[in-house]
Amino acid sequence: MPIRVGILGATGAVGQTFVDLLDGHPLFTITALAASERSAGKTYREAANWIGGNEIPDRVAEMMVQSCKPVLDCDFVFSGLDASVAGDIEGAFARAGYPVISNARNYRMEPDVPLLIPEVNPGHTALIGRQDWGGSGGFIVTNPNCSTVGLVMALKPLHDAFGVAAAHVVTLQALSGAGYPGVSSLDIMGNVIPHIGGEEAKMATETRKLLGTLTEAGVEPADVTISAQCNRVPVLDGHMECVSVRLKAPASAEEAANVMASFESPLAGMGLSTAPEFPIRVFEDERFPQPRRHAMAGGGMQVSVGKVRECPVLGVKFVVLSHNTIRGAAGGAILNAELLNAQGRLVRRTEAVAVE
Amino acid sequence: MPIRVGILGATGAVGQTFVDLLDGHPLFTITALAASERSAGKTYREAANWIGGNEIPDRVAEMMVQSCKPVLDCDFVFSGLDASVAGDIEGAFARAGYPVISNARNYRMEPDVPLLIPEVNPGHTALIGRQDWGGSGGFIVTNPNCSTVGLVMALKPLHDAFGVAAAHVVTLQALSGAGYPGVSSLDIMGNVIPHIGGEEAKMATETRKLLGTLTEAGVEPADVTISAQCNRVPVLDGHMECVSVRLKAPASAEEAANVMASFESPLAGMGLSTAPEFPIRVFEDERFPQPRRHAMAGGGMQVSVGKVRECPVLGVKFVVLSHNTIRGAAGGAILNAELLNAQGRLVRRTEAVAVE
Amino acid sequence: MPIRVGILGATGAVGQTFVDLLDGHPLFTITALAASERSAGKTYREAANWIGGNEIPDRVAEMMVQSCKPVLDCDFVFSGLDASVAGDIEGAFARAGYPVISNARNYRMEPDVPLLIPEVNPGHTALIGRQDWGGSGGFIVTNPNCSTVGLVMALKPLHDAFGVAAAHVVTLQALSGAGYPGVSSLDIMGNVIPHIGGEEAKMATETRKLLGTLTEAGVEPADVTISAQCNRVPVLDGHMECVSVRLKAPASAEEAANVMASFESPLAGMGLSTAPEFPIRVFEDERFPQPRRHAMAGGGMQVSVGKVRECPVLGVKFVVLSHNTIRGAAGGAILNAELLNAQGRLVRRTEAVAVE
Amino acid sequence: MPIRVGILGATGAVGQTFVDLLDGHPLFTITALAASERSAGKTYREAANWIGGNEIPDRVAEMMVQSCKPVLDCDFVFSGLDASVAGDIEGAFARAGYPVISNARNYRMEPDVPLLIPEVNPGHTALIGRQDWGGSGGFIVTNPNCSTVGLVMALKPLHDAFGVAAAHVVTLQALSGAGYPGVSSLDIMGNVIPHIGGEEAKMATETRKLLGTLTEAGVEPADVTISAQCNRVPVLDGHMECVSVRLKAPASAEEAANVMASFESPLAGMGLSTAPEFPIRVFEDERFPQPRRHAMAGGGMQVSVGKVRECPVLGVKFVVLSHNTIRGAAGGAILNAELLNAQGRLVRRTEAVAVE
Repeated sequence: MPIRVGILGATGAVGQTFVDLLDGHPLFTITALAASERSAGKTYREAANWIGGNEIPDRVAEMMVQSCKPVLDCDFVFSGLDASVAGDIEGAFARAGYPVISNARNYRMEPDVPLLIPEVNPGHTALIGRQDWGGSGGFIVTNPNCSTVGLVMALKPLHDAFGVAAAHVVTLQALSGAGYPGVSSLDIMGNVIPHIGGEEAKMATETRKLLGTLTEAGVEPADVTISAQCNRVPVLDGHMECVSVRLKAPASAEEAANVMASFESPLAGMGLSTAPEFPIRVFEDERFPQPRRHAMAGGGMQVSVGKVRECPVLGVKFVVLSHNTIRGAAGGAILNAELLNAQGRLVRRTEAVAVE
Repeated sequence: MPIRVGILGATGAVGQTFVDLLDGHPLFTITALAASERSAGKTYREAANWIGGNEIPDRVAEMMVQSCKPVLDCDFVFSGLDASVAGDIEGAFARAGYPVISNARNYRMEPDVPLLIPEVNPGHTALIGRQDWGGSGGFIVTNPNCSTVGLVMALKPLHDAFGVAAAHVVTLQALSGAGYPGVSSLDIMGNVIPHIGGEEAKMATETRKLLGTLTEAGVEPADVTISAQCNRVPVLDGHMECVSVRLKAPASAEEAANVMASFESPLAGMGLSTAPEFPIRVFEDERFPQPRRHAMAGGGMQVSVGKVRECPVLGVKFVVLSHNTIRGAAGGAILNAELLNAQGRLVRRTEAVAVE
Repeated sequence: MPIRVGILGATGAVGQTFVDLLDGHPLFTITALAASERSAGKTYREAANWIGGNEIPDRVAEMMVQSCKPVLDCDFVFSGLDASVAGDIEGAFARAGYPVISNARNYRMEPDVPLLIPEVNPGHTALIGRQDWGGSGGFIVTNPNCSTVGLVMALKPLHDAFGVAAAHVVTLQALSGAGYPGVSSLDIMGNVIPHIGGEEAKMATETRKLLGTLTEAGVEPADVTISAQCNRVPVLDGHMECVSVRLKAPASAEEAANVMASFESPLAGMGLSTAPEFPIRVFEDERFPQPRRHAMAGGGMQVSVGKVRECPVLGVKFVVLSHNTIRGAAGGAILNAELLNAQGRLVRRTEAVAVE
Repeated sequence: MPIRVGILGATGAVGQTFVDLLDGHPLFTITALAASERSAGKTYREAANWIGGNEIPDRVAEMMVQSCKPVLDCDFVFSGLDASVAGDIEGAFARAGYPVISNARNYRMEPDVPLLIPEVNPGHTALIGRQDWGGSGGFIVTNPNCSTVGLVMALKPLHDAFGVAAAHVVTLQALSGAGYPGVSSLDIMGNVIPHIGGEEAKMATETRKLLGTLTEAGVEPADVTISAQCNRVPVLDGHMECVSVRLKAPASAEEAANVMASFESPLAGMGLSTAPEFPIRVFEDERFPQPRRHAMAGGGMQVSVGKVRECPVLGVKFVVLSHNTIRGAAGGAILNAELLNAQGRLVRRTEAVAVE
């Protein structure tokens, strides 16, 4: 029997990506769509200004959008809510007993909340047991900011092998990272904007938590110094990042490339349907990766690395590309849910639930 | 009386920019246009596939294009030649007694050839006296690669004030930097290409020479470690660069910003018409500079700096923007010529010269 | 003495273009800026999210923004107001005695209100005398929609010479025509949107009024059948239009081109500073006009025509390009004001006016 | 047993699309790749500057590229050759007994050569029997120009139902239509080019042949007057066309839309794997179709129609979108081959063939 999924913020850009990616999912089936009061009571087709390349799945298009309030007829919820409302709503669902797999930033840095990339820190899900939502059994799990994911996926094997002392990253981020309508075409056509509000701080704090160590007291952040300069570029999907690292145990560029190319995912063999067969691909062609050509690799879940070279200043440098709305948002959250399910943390809710 | 100018490679992208920028110049007047044999014998209007936004100046449009061989009826030549032919042709003109103000890369790193940014190293023109082109009186002066200029303009005041130990730079370079037809639209539309052949090495070696010290033995390169990652982005004009520096005498971001903002050009008061009043502008608005809005500041000759902040990894970071075909190519060469003229190094050739 | 100008909707995209174009205007000087209550009481620099390539003129930047209510300390007002509020506010200013030179659509089709392109129907300003705003002496004059101007400028000489029975037009319209933030980058990057709300109807009704005949009863619309298909394309400025016409007196493509190229503006010799010397330029190069290269011709006021050829279906076809925010909005309104001033219809208001 | 396919011009943009689309084809398997002498003798991976979004299929990547001369080890050839060489080479293959399914323009208007869109004029393949290539059994079949296909697919049901007297078309064509490297990014970024050499004439003559009637004397062209204005726009894939038609038997827009929406393909039930289930989709949403969203409908083989409305000048107007490198080139040729195979016109060559 499929696990029943609700989507909070279903009409927004992230919500639409959830709907698109869950179409045909072998485990999860959408049974509830929730959005703002303005959308509630309309069909999804009416309420969502659908911007995706694919069509709205027929079954979903005719579903009625509900308010973002418990109860919803589902076993857990994905949240694509805007940060301005996610705090309250996600908390309410956790208190009502729902697992909340959230893409919002609100709870990411909470001590008891896992900030999760399944290939990087699957054990951090143990934090769930420390959450207390009034004994409801609900909990919250988050995925990182879209620009953090690619960086951390590339740093993980380096950190394991050599220790990363410092990482310097300059991003070239895609438009879809800003949501919809997001960036005005008048601002970005033929232009670069060297500023994305709040992004640089998130890349630093989230990276340290993701690479951190689970202790009695919570997650001990990794001792990695991060410096980020975030830029918006006229690209639709796919965040490029130019990364230079200072390693604790010095390594050549070739050794670094090998360690990334041979990264063994802890998910191997678990049969998670969204997990890419090869989480990291290392290109030898010096022109690659490129966002328009490689963002969709592995269904948008593979991270592409290229140009691994000596950095005269910091040691080793490379570029990394990841799909910001799939690996960096909805797809990452779905993979989180698949891991939680494999760990037995998602259960079918048996109590009667009233549909709003 | 105006100084008579010849343009080598007049029909190419750089050559066209020379023609455009020299229209109405108070000192220099174009009297000779030279290009490949294919163009020779045609009017400039026929020979040049004019790509500029402005029209071809009427007077120039009807001039006859000549071969790139001495003699040309002019007092000195600008060279916008492609590197594949610039070595031989520029040498031939120098041996024939012409000052050659070149944008090509061929002679930049020659010990006796000034690699010149007038605001940065005007004294390097003393190298001219060491050149020997068979006693002809000719010489060659070069300007740096388009991506080097902005970096070095920003580093110069920091280097003078604090000493730059290392600079880490990630570029977001405009399409016009690749010439015409240059980058295929199919490659770059909605995309980023993380590779520009040869560019990264040039940024390192040229920067060290530009910031170097003139000695008896030539230019002693500055002891600055450079690491560059060069990217092509879908922007028409204006190279953005994200720079992090390690300073020898530590300075705060505010001190660094002040030093750049208060940079006093050695050209001040010399009345060079192409020299921007303020060579460096430091923005406080965190969204600026942006290539489409600020590349043309100061007629394309002002360098824009913004986002000066602490860099947790290297010390101080900022972004810098400069116009790649003006400050970074033809405009830079014209400013070089204005400086040489002010130094009395450009003289009117009085011998009779036969027009080809 | 300069004529004192107020700008209604000064902080919006059209208002900003007014501010930009009026900087240094020989006749008009901005003495009042008005915008929504949210902006009132702030300096213009604070209130306007300035999006132009040029900087805010210093004098204007520090002016205080007022509410859009009479009285304002000025002799007449330009209106860059959004249609949702322009009706009431412009009416209020007319009733308070101000000439209102409006870019909004609200009053364009009113029988007593001139819809004005100075080169096309300068005599329509006679309608002003028929307006009655309670004896205030105020009046309203409008300019057409940005996509109408280029079409009508090209049709005018054809209509005079041969009579235009029908015009079929397909537009490729620039992003700035939608205002700011306007079109989302996610919608238009690498895309075409074949729909612009309300645009096609405006092109038909406005064209007929502009080419119409002034009679006792108002403007008798020209008997021209118009069919428009309006598309948005990823271009910043400059509306391209592919036009085919059926002429009443058949003419060859060459004759049509000649008639457009030799169009004599009724403004010739009047010394209007915004009027382009040649209102219409006809290109022979089959690749031209192009929006990025030619939209700014004549300071954005010249209309470019090209590819004049036989149309096997309708008779003659051509493309026409005009700058949508200059000729098609603020620049057109300024030229309207210059004409009205030359006709003696703008007078210095001598009564004391209290600044809000 | 699969039918063995050779690809002429395999390394070019069209050739690459053949390789991409034939990967996994149920009937056709690539057994020979041929290109210019420069490529011959290299592996396909070395010879092709692969520009596609997908990877080169592994099996093909290691195949050796041969010269474009018979014999090749295959049962028929697809030709993606440039027109400059296609005439001679395709003729040579036909004379050597190969069916040549060509995308080049050289033979399209030859009286005995079918210009074929399977849904439009499948019976025109009867012309094959009239070709004489020295008794070799070889023949040539062509598909139309990329901008013709969408137009004719939309006109076909209208022509059948009402008769099309005249069609006026303005195109907004994608960059990939110009091949690779094709259009310079400096020419088209943020721009429109109102000229595509030779395109307008092809749209007229090809449309008349495609809608024409097979007679003893060849194809009697349809009596349809065509006027085309072709524009290049900054879109990657998908030609948009704004079409207005004058019908012989007047019809309302609704009737026209119904006729297009209910078009019954003559291929229905034939099981051709490249044939889209619904060859024409008619959108009701006035914002659609759009190239970036709908070009890939039906695997790039479905033609999208929208905005069907009355045209005040010609009767009915609409927009039509088709994928220019799939439906308009390689995909169209593959569908041609599938039809020919279903008609029994492709046979396995049993003679021994020597591989070059």
